[in-house]
Amino acid sequence: MTNTQVTLVQIDNYGPWTVTPEPRREADLQTLQSRLYADISQFVGNRGGYTFFTRFDNMIAVTNGLDLEDHALLQESVGNRYPVTLSLGVATGTSPVQALADATTRVQEAGSAQDKDRRECLEGRIVEDGHRADGDIQIAHFDVIDATGNYTDELNAFDTFIEIEQGYAELMRHMRYAHDSLSFFVGGDNIIVVCPDLGEAEYEEAIHHVEEAVDVELQVGVGRGRSAHDAGFAAKHALETCRANGTRVELEW
Amino acid sequence: MTNTQVTLVQIDNYGPWTVTPEPRREADLQTLQSRLYADISQFVGNRGGYTFFTRFDNMIAVTNGLDLEDHALLQESVGNRYPVTLSLGVATGTSPVQALADATTRVQEAGSAQDKDRRECLEGRIVEDGHRADGDIQIAHFDVIDATGNYTDELNAFDTFIEIEQGYAELMRHMRYAHDSLSFFVGGDNIIVVCPDLGEAEYEEAIHHVEEAVDVELQVGVGRGRSAHDAGFAAKHALETCRANGTRVELEW
Amino acid sequence: MTNTQVTLVQIDNYGPWTVTPEPRREADLQTLQSRLYADISQFVGNRGGYTFFTRFDNMIAVTNGLDLEDHALLQESVGNRYPVTLSLGVATGTSPVQALADATTRVQEAGSAQDKDRRECLEGRIVEDGHRADGDIQIAHFDVIDATGNYTDELNAFDTFIEIEQGYAELMRHMRYAHDSLSFFVGGDNIIVVCPDLGEAEYEEAIHHVEEAVDVELQVGVGRGRSAHDAGFAAKHALETCRANGTRVELEW
Amino acid sequence: MTNTQVTLVQIDNYGPWTVTPEPRREADLQTLQSRLYADISQFVGNRGGYTFFTRFDNMIAVTNGLDLEDHALLQESVGNRYPVTLSLGVATGTSPVQALADATTRVQEAGSAQDKDRRECLEGRIVEDGHRADGDIQIAHFDVIDATGNYTDELNAFDTFIEIEQGYAELMRHMRYAHDSLSFFVGGDNIIVVCPDLGEAEYEEAIHHVEEAVDVELQVGVGRGRSAHDAGFAAKHALETCRANGTRVELEW
Repeated sequence: MTNTQVTLVQIDNYGPWTVTPEPRREADLQTLQSRLYADISQFVGNRGGYTFFTRFDNMIAVTNGLDLEDHALLQESVGNRYPVTLSLGVATGTSPVQALADATTRVQEAGSAQDKDRRECLEGRIVEDGHRADGDIQIAHFDVIDATGNYTDELNAFDTFIEIEQGYAELMRHMRYAHDSLSFFVGGDNIIVVCPDLGEAEYEEAIHHVEEAVDVELQVGVGRGRSAHDAGFAAKHALETCRANGTRVELEW
Repeated sequence: MTNTQVTLVQIDNYGPWTVTPEPRREADLQTLQSRLYADISQFVGNRGGYTFFTRFDNMIAVTNGLDLEDHALLQESVGNRYPVTLSLGVATGTSPVQALADATTRVQEAGSAQDKDRRECLEGRIVEDGHRADGDIQIAHFDVIDATGNYTDELNAFDTFIEIEQGYAELMRHMRYAHDSLSFFVGGDNIIVVCPDLGEAEYEEAIHHVEEAVDVELQVGVGRGRSAHDAGFAAKHALETCRANGTRVELEW
Repeated sequence: MTNTQVTLVQIDNYGPWTVTPEPRREADLQTLQSRLYADISQFVGNRGGYTFFTRFDNMIAVTNGLDLEDHALLQESVGNRYPVTLSLGVATGTSPVQALADATTRVQEAGSAQDKDRRECLEGRIVEDGHRADGDIQIAHFDVIDATGNYTDELNAFDTFIEIEQGYAELMRHMRYAHDSLSFFVGGDNIIVVCPDLGEAEYEEAIHHVEEAVDVELQVGVGRGRSAHDAGFAAKHALETCRANGTRVELEW
Repeated sequence: MTNTQVTLVQIDNYGPWTVTPEPRREADLQTLQSRLYADISQFVGNRGGYTFFTRFDNMIAVTNGLDLEDHALLQESVGNRYPVTLSLGVATGTSPVQALADATTRVQEAGSAQDKDRRECLEGRIVEDGHRADGDIQIAHFDVIDATGNYTDELNAFDTFIEIEQGYAELMRHMRYAHDSLSFFVGGDNIIVVCPDLGEAEYEEAIHHVEEAVDVELQVGVGRGRSAHDAGFAAKHALETCRANGTRVELEW
């Protein structure tokens, strides 16, 4: 059984800040957001976690292995180096969706995303060291079969993007409502999905569903681990097996 | 009539690099991609352009005001500071989609995205200084009406993301196929659309279409300018007018 | 005759900020300072200028080719992305030291470096486009002869650093008081010096002086150009000639 | 008794890389160096360590609390994101200078700093968890008394820099040869010194020495701790006491 620790990272009162006293340069906002994301990705990532940019003002991370002190240090460090601050909600559970829902509730109860007085809240609970196990995280790494040959080298860059995006949009909804999983586009034609305890059949079904719905062909490698990195790394290796063998689903654990 | 200069930015042979000699840490890839995007966004942005992260390994920029020497400098600077290199295709036209298609063709003709021997190609043509005009760019800045109140503060962070994402997926397809426009999610609940010469009716229609299709309510500010920044800044101001007055479409030029 | 445009970049009220409400984490301050410097270096550098980190809270840049609008954009962009703001003073002259003195006076007259109410001042004047010439900048690029063989691979890293640092300290004072030049350590064993119109004899003398005073052997390539990059690039090539031929002073213009 | 763990960070074969195939743009090198330093500072810093930029191609870090696995992860992460790689030597001891000497030897024995075939060496030993103690690190944080009033607001920015630099050059030599300590300029008018077990008298003496030699007036706060951050944070607080009370030396432990 999985036990995923999920952190919601929300920039405090960001929307109003972007237009105060008047709208800020878009290129600066894009730079700020993507660098802030990069820093969080490094901090969490070099402790074994994964961070997804999601909407940039609301990021979602899998943080097994990071305690609340680590979270507080991240808040402090960002507060020292950026013109914005972060609120963090942390929760755990066998269902990644439920864990995220709990993490979100913690932040929402502390105040609105556009509440001027809610700053740097840190609420929630973690998987304690003594309770961590090797199969706590299950991660599926999907990509589009021969995306370069079928799309990137053939269509204009936006039409390729639409195809990839459609595949993602369909997969994200399906995995969330059918399989309690959180799917994130991570660039190129790659989608990383944080899953509960699913088996080969569910992945076959999901791939079939997306192909039926939007005609995008996916393959997937799946891994488990004690941390997001361990699970995700196994998933990457499994996906390499798909690429080498022409298989559609590979589980490695 | 608009005359949009579009640049396709493609990381050379990136997919193979990410798994050579074996898969690289996902957190490092995410950091690399988002920082590379941030740097390009700054370089283009402080010359008046806009860059969109799109798929990260393929980024799309509106670059009126940047000549080929600027593009070459960007390539050189990235090549000096990153473990990857960039190929760039540049094209212009009254239709942003057509301009992007031409820019893409330039890069594709130089070699596959996964061609080991295609490095730092720079192909295309720009809008020369003497031919630039105040209305060369038209940009529409959409956001979701009261996204914080309706979604962020109410749903779990992933379900909010699904709503925003659905609105985006629908708008991007509609604007591309109905109105020859390029739509980009830029974080939060914001979508920036690079348009040809459209009028109020088309924006009304697009908002109506998205609401009908996926029940997401959008508003939009539209601006024109000599550069993406000028047009986009006017669009932001127009969107502020929507927020202040409760209107759905505001044009500012 | 040279005509150097010098910009003093001063972080507003930085000292007090670093200890308010209590001392901030040193690693965060170091990260903030070096990234801010990197951003300024890119902004100025991709317009042909050079920026030196100096004391980090006070940086010095050679900015021929950047007008006051560029300077204002840099201020705005930093203000949008950092928790600190910049004041800028700009001045020009045949003597780099005098130009810097004038630039400094502009900032000092606007208020103290620790004045809470002085924010984002931008004062000064530039070399107008019509008055720029190919020999406006003269740059000398020094390094220590066989620093790797004599120091890095032989001494402990701090003793090597002391040797390099002693050479730098001696050169900086000598070039400033004897030759009205601004010398900056730029990493490794490299020192870049912004000079007025000096000839081979002055460089021979300076090298001799440093060797006599602190027993550190330097070589130097010198270049001229319309911008710091042009002059500095010629200087780098000239220094390569020193390395290839075993000469001590090479002028390339 | 202190037990300092020191890491030498050396960029592999950096000098030759900067001029291959021809000299690279100085602004790009400066950006690369300062961002690489910033990343290392964050990685080490959010584990309680301190990193000093020193010569940028050779950086020195105090790394108590980081094991060899952490060091390997830093190497891997930098290798994934930069066009250069790092070699690391780690050593421990009661004398910071001796520890650094040992760390340097480890790297030198693996090959020259300009050896094409030496890449990502990682050699040395750490202070094991069971042997760490609260007084392992002693850090002294010096600054120049009223640097803003006496220098920054009065002299031109380069002459101020010369004064600060002279104070630093004198202190670094004195602390190294008289007191086995490693002194690093960290920006502004601040110098952080990594010390063995020194008492108030030694700091009084050092301040007196610098004042006699170069007429720069220093004050110092000194702290001890289990990590560089703990010791350095105590030192910062002690320095605040100097500022508040007008004292020259404050020890806080």
